Amino acid sequence: MNRKPKIVILGAGYGGMMTASKLQKANAHHDAEITLVNKHNYHYQTTWLHEPAAGTLHHDRTRMRIDSVIDTNKIHFIKDSVTEIKGEEKKVLLASGELEYDYLVIGLGSEPETFGIPGVEKNAFSIRSVNSVRLIREHIEYMFASYNNEEEKNEGYLAFIVAGAGFTGIEFVGELSERIPELCEEYDIDREKVKIYSVEAAPTALPGFDEELVNYAVNLLESRGVEFKISTPIKEVTENGVVLEDGEEINASTVVWTTGVRGNSVLEKSGFETMRGRVKVEKDLRVPGYDNVFIIGDCAIIINEEINRPYPPTAQIAMQQADTCAKNLRALLAGKEQLAAFKPDIKGTVASLGGKEAVGLVGSKKLYGTSASAMKKVIDNRYLFMLGGMPLLLKKGKFNIF
Amino acid sequence: MNRKPKIVILGAGYGGMMTASKLQKANAHHDAEITLVNKHNYHYQTTWLHEPAAGTLHHDRTRMRIDSVIDTNKIHFIKDSVTEIKGEEKKVLLASGELEYDYLVIGLGSEPETFGIPGVEKNAFSIRSVNSVRLIREHIEYMFASYNNEEEKNEGYLAFIVAGAGFTGIEFVGELSERIPELCEEYDIDREKVKIYSVEAAPTALPGFDEELVNYAVNLLESRGVEFKISTPIKEVTENGVVLEDGEEINASTVVWTTGVRGNSVLEKSGFETMRGRVKVEKDLRVPGYDNVFIIGDCAIIINEEINRPYPPTAQIAMQQADTCAKNLRALLAGKEQLAAFKPDIKGTVASLGGKEAVGLVGSKKLYGTSASAMKKVIDNRYLFMLGGMPLLLKKGKFNIF
Repeated sequence: MNRKPKIVILGAGYGGMMTASKLQKANAHHDAEITLVNKHNYHYQTTWLHEPAAGTLHHDRTRMRIDSVIDTNKIHFIKDSVTEIKGEEKKVLLASGELEYDYLVIGLGSEPETFGIPGVEKNAFSIRSVNSVRLIREHIEYMFASYNNEEEKNEGYLAFIVAGAGFTGIEFVGELSERIPELCEEYDIDREKVKIYSVEAAPTALPGFDEELVNYAVNLLESRGVEFKISTPIKEVTENGVVLEDGEEINASTVVWTTGVRGNSVLEKSGFETMRGRVKVEKDLRVPGYDNVFIIGDCAIIINEEINRPYPPTAQIAMQQADTCAKNLRALLAGKEQLAAFKPDIKGTVASLGGKEAVGLVGSKKLYGTSASAMKKVIDNRYLFMLGGMPLLLKKGKFNIF
Repeated sequence: MNRKPKIVILGAGYGGMMTASKLQKANAHHDAEITLVNKHNYHYQTTWLHEPAAGTLHHDRTRMRIDSVIDTNKIHFIKDSVTEIKGEEKKVLLASGELEYDYLVIGLGSEPETFGIPGVEKNAFSIRSVNSVRLIREHIEYMFASYNNEEEKNEGYLAFIVAGAGFTGIEFVGELSERIPELCEEYDIDREKVKIYSVEAAPTALPGFDEELVNYAVNLLESRGVEFKISTPIKEVTENGVVLEDGEEINASTVVWTTGVRGNSVLEKSGFETMRGRVKVEKDLRVPGYDNVFIIGDCAIIINEEINRPYPPTAQIAMQQADTCAKNLRALLAGKEQLAAFKPDIKGTVASLGGKEAVGLVGSKKLYGTSASAMKKVIDNRYLFMLGGMPLLLKKGKFNIF
C-alpha cells in the first residue's frame, strides 16, 4: 500500500496561508497528507498591522482563526514554532516535536532588520505581529497616561520616533498622526506638546516611490504635525530615545523601528545560503539543491531582471508565489517534472496615510487622497476575498470606503 | 462704599463643590465675592474612581467640568494649586499667584496614607484622581500587552496586588475581578495565569463592617479568583512586588495602595495642628483659633462621641458638612454670631463588588447582591441630583440598575 506523500507548510502568513487554501480548493488533500504549522492559531494581515499599532483599528480586525479559513479536516494544523529545518533528513524540528515531509513549503516570513545598530532590539518596538502591535498601542497609551502623573513633566513621554520612512514607517506615522488628537483628548494633553518624528537615513521619504506622490505624502503628514528628519542616520537607540549620526539626541520614550526586514533566522540557522536571511530561489521557487523544498514570501529572493534587484518583500508577491507554489506541488504530486516559473504581476502600490488619505501607483496611474484610500481598501478586501471568499470578506472587510 | 466680603473655597471635591453650589443656590454671591480654587477645571467623584482604575467605567463618567455645575458668572473659578495657607494674613498662596479672603473654606481632600512603609510612593499606584486612575488602567493593560512579547514569561506582569482590604481596596478588587476576563480575551491570555491578591494587615477584610457582609464579599471575590491575605502586614513595596512582614515576597508588577488616607499636606505645611494631616474642628466646622476658617471633608476631624473615634472620611459626611458650612457662611454674612453645629446623619454604607454585586448596611438593614448594587447606584445618583439637579443626573447618572 502506497502511503500518501506528506506536504508540510511552514508559516500561515500570506504565502503559507494562500498555498494551503489553494491546495485545499484543488482537493490536493486527496493525493497528499498536508500539514500547516504556525506559531499562533490565527493568521494575521501583516500589511494592516500599522493600524492596530497606532490604535486606529482593533487587532481582531486584522486576524482570523486559521480553522475559520482552512478546513482542518482536510489540512492538518499544528500550532507550534519552527526551530530548524533538516533538509538532508527531510525533517522539521518544532519547539515541541518534529515533522517529516516529502515536500516542504517555507513561508516563515521576516524579522526586523536592525543593521546591527546598537539598542534597537532592546529599546525599540517593531510592527511585526499581533502581539507586538498590541504592545505598541498600549505603550503609547501608557506614555500619555503617565505624563500628567509626573511632578516634573517628561517631554519624552509625548515624543514618538518612527525610525525608517519606508512603506511601513510612513503608513504607521499616518495612523499615529490621526490617533494623537484622540489621545490628547482622552488624557487632557495639549496637541502641541506631542512630537512625532519620521527619521530616515536615505535622502527621501518612501525611497524608490514616485516623487510627486512622496511630496504629497510628506506635505500631508507635516500638516498633521509630523516632523521629518531625512538623510538622518540613527547611531543608537537608548532607553531615552535615539542618538543620531551627528551626535544629536532626541528624547523619546517610544521608538518604533521600521527600517525594513530580513528573512526569518531559522533559514540561516538551518544552513541555507542566505542574503539578509533570504534565500535566492529558482524560477520555480525551489531551493537550489533541494527539489522538494519551496520558499515563498519574505524568505525568498527573486531577481527583477529589469533592474537587476530583488523584488521587494510584499504581500502581493507572497500571494502570487503561493499560487505558483500550489500549482507546482500539484504537478509534482501528478508526477510531472516540468514546473511553472514564477512571474510576478505587480498591479500597483498604495500607501495609506491615515484617515481617508493615501498615495499610490496603480499601473502607471497616480492616485491621491480619497481615491487612493479607496483603492487601498479595495486591495485589502480583494485579499480577503481571494483567501476566504465572500464570508471572510463580509466578516473582516473594510467597507467605509468614502 | 463697603466692599463685599471675600469667600474663598479651596478644592472642588465633594465638600468644596457642594459648598459652592449651595451658596450659589442661596444667592450668596449678592452678599459676597465668592471664589472657588481647584487644581483641575473639573470635579470628579472620588468614590467612583475604583471603576475607571479597573477600566470598567470611563473616567469621563466620573467627572464634570466645574463650569457645567457652577455658574462662573456668580462664583469665580480659578484653576490653580494651593501651596500654603497664611491664616494670620488671611491669604492663600497658589502655584501662580495669591488670594486674600475674609472667609476661607478648606476642602482640599486627602492623600494616600503610606504609614512610612518603604517603596510605597515610588512603586505603588493610588486611587486618588482622574490622572492616577487612568494610569492604573493603562498600566494594567500594558502588563497584559507585554506578557506575550517576552521570551521568558514574567508571571509578575499578570499578578496584581491590592494593598488594603478596606472600602476602596475591596471595591477596586471587585471591579478588577470583573475586568480581568475581558483583558484575558483581549490579549490571548489564560485566566488561570492571572493572580489578584487582596492583602490586609488587619485580621479581617473590610474592618469595622458587619461580619456577615464581610463574609459575603470575601466569598464572592474568592469565587472570582481573588486570593485574600488577611492579617498580613506589608514590610516593603519594591519594583517587583511586595515583601511581607514574614519575609515572603510576592512577585507583581502592579501594586495598588489603598490602606486609607490622611489629610492634604498643605494643612500641616501651613502650620495647622494636625493628626494624620487632619485638623480637629469645632462643632461649627471652624478651626480653633480662626473664626473665619472652615475645614470640611477629609481634612476635618469630627469626633463621633458614641464611640469616641473620628467619623471616617467619606463623601457622605463631606457633603453634609458642606451644607452646614454654607449655612454658617450665610449666617456670618448676615452678621449673626450663633453658628449651627454639624450633625452627621449616616444613612448607610454600600460597598460595590463589581458587576451587579455589592454589600451594604442601610440603617440596620443588610443588603446583598443586586439589591445592594441597586442601592449603591441610587446613592451615586442622589449625589448627582443634589449637586446639579436633573440635568446632571441625566448626563452622568448610573441607570443600568437591574
